[in-house]
Amino acid sequence: MAPLRSWLEIDPKSHFSLYNLPFGIISTASIPEPHPAVPIGDQVLDLQIFTAGNGFAALSTIQPHQAVFSRPTLNDFAALGRPLHRVVREYLQTVLLEDGPFPDVLKENKALRDNALIAQKDCRMHMPMHINDYTDFYAGLHHAYNVGVLFRGPQNALQPNYKHLPVGYHGRASSVVVSGTPIRRPNGQILTDSVVKEPILTPCRKLDMELELGCFVCKPSAMGEPVSIADAPEHLFGVVLMNDWSARDIQAWEYVPLGPFNSKNFGTTISPWIVLMDALEPFASAGLQNDVKCLPYLDEGNREAHYAIDLSVELIADSGSKSTICKTSATNLLFSFPQMLAHHTVGGCPFNVGDLMGSGTISGEAKSAKGCLLEQSENGKVSIRLDDGQERMFLKDGDEITITGVCGGEEGALVGFGQCTGKILPAIELIS
Amino acid sequence: MAPLRSWLEIDPKSHFSLYNLPFGIISTASIPEPHPAVPIGDQVLDLQIFTAGNGFAALSTIQPHQAVFSRPTLNDFAALGRPLHRVVREYLQTVLLEDGPFPDVLKENKALRDNALIAQKDCRMHMPMHINDYTDFYAGLHHAYNVGVLFRGPQNALQPNYKHLPVGYHGRASSVVVSGTPIRRPNGQILTDSVVKEPILTPCRKLDMELELGCFVCKPSAMGEPVSIADAPEHLFGVVLMNDWSARDIQAWEYVPLGPFNSKNFGTTISPWIVLMDALEPFASAGLQNDVKCLPYLDEGNREAHYAIDLSVELIADSGSKSTICKTSATNLLFSFPQMLAHHTVGGCPFNVGDLMGSGTISGEAKSAKGCLLEQSENGKVSIRLDDGQERMFLKDGDEITITGVCGGEEGALVGFGQCTGKILPAIELIS
Repeated sequence: MAPLRSWLEIDPKSHFSLYNLPFGIISTASIPEPHPAVPIGDQVLDLQIFTAGNGFAALSTIQPHQAVFSRPTLNDFAALGRPLHRVVREYLQTVLLEDGPFPDVLKENKALRDNALIAQKDCRMHMPMHINDYTDFYAGLHHAYNVGVLFRGPQNALQPNYKHLPVGYHGRASSVVVSGTPIRRPNGQILTDSVVKEPILTPCRKLDMELELGCFVCKPSAMGEPVSIADAPEHLFGVVLMNDWSARDIQAWEYVPLGPFNSKNFGTTISPWIVLMDALEPFASAGLQNDVKCLPYLDEGNREAHYAIDLSVELIADSGSKSTICKTSATNLLFSFPQMLAHHTVGGCPFNVGDLMGSGTISGEAKSAKGCLLEQSENGKVSIRLDDGQERMFLKDGDEITITGVCGGEEGALVGFGQCTGKILPAIELIS
Repeated sequence: MAPLRSWLEIDPKSHFSLYNLPFGIISTASIPEPHPAVPIGDQVLDLQIFTAGNGFAALSTIQPHQAVFSRPTLNDFAALGRPLHRVVREYLQTVLLEDGPFPDVLKENKALRDNALIAQKDCRMHMPMHINDYTDFYAGLHHAYNVGVLFRGPQNALQPNYKHLPVGYHGRASSVVVSGTPIRRPNGQILTDSVVKEPILTPCRKLDMELELGCFVCKPSAMGEPVSIADAPEHLFGVVLMNDWSARDIQAWEYVPLGPFNSKNFGTTISPWIVLMDALEPFASAGLQNDVKCLPYLDEGNREAHYAIDLSVELIADSGSKSTICKTSATNLLFSFPQMLAHHTVGGCPFNVGDLMGSGTISGEAKSAKGCLLEQSENGKVSIRLDDGQERMFLKDGDEITITGVCGGEEGALVGFGQCTGKILPAIELIS
């Protein structure tokens, strides 16, 4: 199959090929209010301007819904449902196609082209969705195993429930932020002496990152009404990269018996462009094999509901030195997003459009594929050597973490997420 | 002090005396869209109608903000801040006062009185706030101790962190519902055989209630910026009764290591009227003494930040038989709401107006003061005898739980919450 080609110049190494067309929220010099856009190569198509310039005139199904393209979040676009996401994405593909059926819309419409196509570097990115509820799962089997080994040894590494259900916890929606937002090192209670058990209040000493995927929900479900595993895919809007920053020392002291709390709620970073489920479909893949037979409500049959996304994590030290500290694949998950949603709702928990589910930390089996520093440093026992010779156990102030994710190796046809990045600011000084 | 008297007839046993004036969201035959109101005796003052009838004409500070009284939630009213809540509540007191300074406003304004005063029984109650994030704490010391004894014995009943910080977890905002909403028994994974460790999917067999208070936040705090214990009271809007329905068998299987999830997210019921912090201030009281000296960021000094609220729980069986199954006081908490907020934000977790914090189950020391059935039945070992001779370990389909809370014993001066009620519907049948 000859690759799709655009009349626009697109760097063949760009994450934002014609095969992708994810959605995000930008603000620009001309429209300072946050509004939707789609990236193509190193530009974006400003959907508010495109809509105002009759860009969707040829698309009758979208006519009644055009107001969604001037909203400050993508919630209303998401709520249109997957069939309409598909229509919009495929239409935009044809508009951008070299020999597409609608040259008048943009290709030969210089005025609209000049207004609606904006350099990505001139756009400020905003949170793409308003999140009502955020849930973080723990579906990265190798991660759960590695962490279990650290704290309980290899015999009891995984809890008895682990393979029977996607273990998860409710996270804090208010601290989910868009890529680029600085993350302040949290203060918190930690235990320095396990004998005396008197905590101190201190800036976190074991600040960590976690490589995850996040998936947004686009279809509400009512209280008391489970979403079946068969229906679950239609409830999913799209996927982002996610960094679930973690304070391991705060976590160790606080998490029994009700789970992680302040160790997680100080910040969670997501990449700004939501890659639609349809764009990921060509990269559908099996996840990790579950050697436990799950209950029927979690049975996906032969459906491949994971995605072959190549993931990497780069640590940029204050010196500017860049080190790739992790390379792995998003197939390293035991449960898929449809399984997570089916489990989350089996007891009747309701969902709103915009709710976010995190996958849990994604680690491969290799040492170089561990998705957090807790695993890599074996909880502070082994140093991680950076490219400039510096060492790390956990994150230092000024460190920047950038997660990258991309599907497909073929130049000109990449479906990528761009970057999910955040830099650590020093803790504030508390008056005690 | 002679009690405040109104020109309105108010049953001296009413929770909604002139001393109370809580806020809620109603809809009525004349205004079917949800909007704010204040209950007085067995009536309510419809604030949208009162505002439209120039009821606030004498109150210049509230003039620019009158639109908050036609909103579908109280978030915008809450966001005005405690000083303005105080102004509005005290003004409404004077308007309703027998010899108040503003007889023209309502007392002698028959047209407005006829429109704005509505029988409570003719109002439908709605969720008073839009909740972005909901957190549930575990500050009921006797509850935590009793549950700890059940699962770990008296020597290890409380975890080492318990008295050092208000233990809490992020809950599910989407399933917080207003009193009267039926609660469907959840299906979920439970373990019936602790040897084989093969779960089954079944309607919950250990359905429980939890007697709690909820507190709404009215002042946002930014990410990275802790709310000090001194500032925390200004961030609190008001208090409701809360029933944190719990599926104990689902919880037992799922909660290690990340805490309760589907065992809690199928429903949480709150009472409809938010009692303002100012209305509770006369009932300020010490909570339980903490024999551990907390870190300074949690130190309230001599401030009494708990409230002497008499709480009771009634179980109404399908037969109609009513049994009071618990009587206790809200002073049975080890940490106050200001302490919870100071802890929640010490690492930088941001808050939005409308966020909800639950106290955790409130149990007294006496057997008759245990705030959940798990404690009362010792996890299904001891029967609870109802007034008509029926027995319970946990809740049956058709059971209705009603929590009541009231401050002050003086007739004509009660500050109460009304009721927080929910009836159990049978689980839906899952196609497996």
